[in-house]
Amino acid sequence: MSQKITLDHGSGGKLTLELIEEVFKSESGLDSAILGDIAFTTDSHSIKPLFFAGGDIGKLSVAGTVNDLLCVGAKPLYLSTAFIIEAGFEIDKLNRIVKSIKEEAEDAGVKIVCGDTKVVENGKCDGVYINTSGIGKIIRPIKGDNINDGDAVIVSGSIGEHGFAILNQRENLNLNTELRSDVSNLTDLILPLIESDVEIKFMRDPTRGGLAMCLNELCYKRDFGFEIEESLIPVMEDVRVISEILGIEPYYSANEGKMVIVVSKKDQDRALDILKKNPKGSNAKIIGKVSKKTAGNVILKTKFGSTRLLKMPVADKMPRIC
Amino acid sequence: MSQKITLDHGSGGKLTLELIEEVFKSESGLDSAILGDIAFTTDSHSIKPLFFAGGDIGKLSVAGTVNDLLCVGAKPLYLSTAFIIEAGFEIDKLNRIVKSIKEEAEDAGVKIVCGDTKVVENGKCDGVYINTSGIGKIIRPIKGDNINDGDAVIVSGSIGEHGFAILNQRENLNLNTELRSDVSNLTDLILPLIESDVEIKFMRDPTRGGLAMCLNELCYKRDFGFEIEESLIPVMEDVRVISEILGIEPYYSANEGKMVIVVSKKDQDRALDILKKNPKGSNAKIIGKVSKKTAGNVILKTKFGSTRLLKMPVADKMPRIC
Repeated sequence: MSQKITLDHGSGGKLTLELIEEVFKSESGLDSAILGDIAFTTDSHSIKPLFFAGGDIGKLSVAGTVNDLLCVGAKPLYLSTAFIIEAGFEIDKLNRIVKSIKEEAEDAGVKIVCGDTKVVENGKCDGVYINTSGIGKIIRPIKGDNINDGDAVIVSGSIGEHGFAILNQRENLNLNTELRSDVSNLTDLILPLIESDVEIKFMRDPTRGGLAMCLNELCYKRDFGFEIEESLIPVMEDVRVISEILGIEPYYSANEGKMVIVVSKKDQDRALDILKKNPKGSNAKIIGKVSKKTAGNVILKTKFGSTRLLKMPVADKMPRIC
Repeated sequence: MSQKITLDHGSGGKLTLELIEEVFKSESGLDSAILGDIAFTTDSHSIKPLFFAGGDIGKLSVAGTVNDLLCVGAKPLYLSTAFIIEAGFEIDKLNRIVKSIKEEAEDAGVKIVCGDTKVVENGKCDGVYINTSGIGKIIRPIKGDNINDGDAVIVSGSIGEHGFAILNQRENLNLNTELRSDVSNLTDLILPLIESDVEIKFMRDPTRGGLAMCLNELCYKRDFGFEIEESLIPVMEDVRVISEILGIEPYYSANEGKMVIVVSKKDQDRALDILKKNPKGSNAKIIGKVSKKTAGNVILKTKFGSTRLLKMPVADKMPRIC
């Protein structure tokens, strides 16, 4: 009997990674393809619910693709938007989503230049799915191929908000919280860093699977790992509370407006200075370093001084988070 | 009460055109965006069934996007593929689709350079939806902005096969036919034409809504129209038979491996010669001309010598054809 796809295959964890390796035979590991002096990326969005605290699928679909272009050292320029819409979907809602796309695109400095619209029967979609593909101009290619022992690991701000905000709303947890998704394009935060001479080794927006997946994926089958300090990782109080109630660590919760940045140790303070000049980077922190000793693994030094593995999630507990 | 999206909005007819104008405020009318020396396009595919006579959603998703790049005078180079997969979908089928994508990409001379995978719950998709976006290098930009009275209209081969093949299979019409979809990339047919000095005014692959939609959309709100001769339009015998049984003219049936080409009258024979050098163009025909007198309309001269409007379809009778 043929194996079947499960929700876990799409959760962004190890199963997704294996599916991509086995079925698609792809191992690039970069968020965007680098094609000479242009970057090219694609993302389909099937988030549930479509409208959530802090944003909607429209804003998300622009921010996600813009951030993927920034990751490889590109200035985001052009986006496509392709809609799959369920018959019966309200045109008013579609208008709200399109408005949100336009606003986020303007904020990110990108143009929507082409699109597509398909409609499927009621029950063959979940409102609307949006694919955004994007093109950027490479300022300097960032490929993650020169990561060295001692390089610094920076997060651009507090982690876990997007995943928990969605979960709180979707699962009717009724937690008394003002928590909002952090969904946002990071053009004005990250472009100055790309345009500086800070030696950037790698960047990724830690979406599905959160910070834990991001770091594990980066050192997967590589000759280096990470040593991260729990006490240095910025986490909002509301995220901490929800995390404890749900029994899910914030390191596994998706972000949609944060960047993980690996820089040369010598440039770590300058990188932080550049990030902190922008309000979106006010909570940026150096959270640890690259370590040859922990090859292939992410080691978390806890607040109590002990150490443990921050494992790659097999499957995220949060499907349809983006 | 808010208006709702219907299947007709996605059928590629007038309702789709109005939706795109009203909601997305887009009027480009080109299959790909022209951005300096690159072309960029996107298409989401939700065809039903996924596997059909002559191809599958994988082949379709590559061919469709490659052909859209060719339309604006570009050499197709890079594709992205983004999957939305329904939980429960068989991995064997996914493997077949991925294989088909790779084969068609190789045949079309393009590289798959980036991708994305999302999984949604059973009942929130229909097996798999695939978005392919593409980048090409502009050889010469073809914008449709210099169409003149008397320009020749060429079709690269017989029309209507894709739509009727899908309909025959999906609706269990049980018509005794060998009819197969014409789905195919047209790189090796169209690239030589682009690289020649034939004065090409416009190209489009007549997909949803068929030849009728393609021509009507091109002259929509413009100061020219078309005069087309029914007796010159190549139609396979099987298509003719199904057309009569269904009461749908082949002009309204989708194609996925044909091109409508408008060229300067002086170059029409040379254009035809170039097309006919390739087996995919062996049935290429000049089917009519651009006419200022019929501005905004497509006039069909029937086999009986009378003339009638070949109207823009309000909504195609064939949803989910691509």
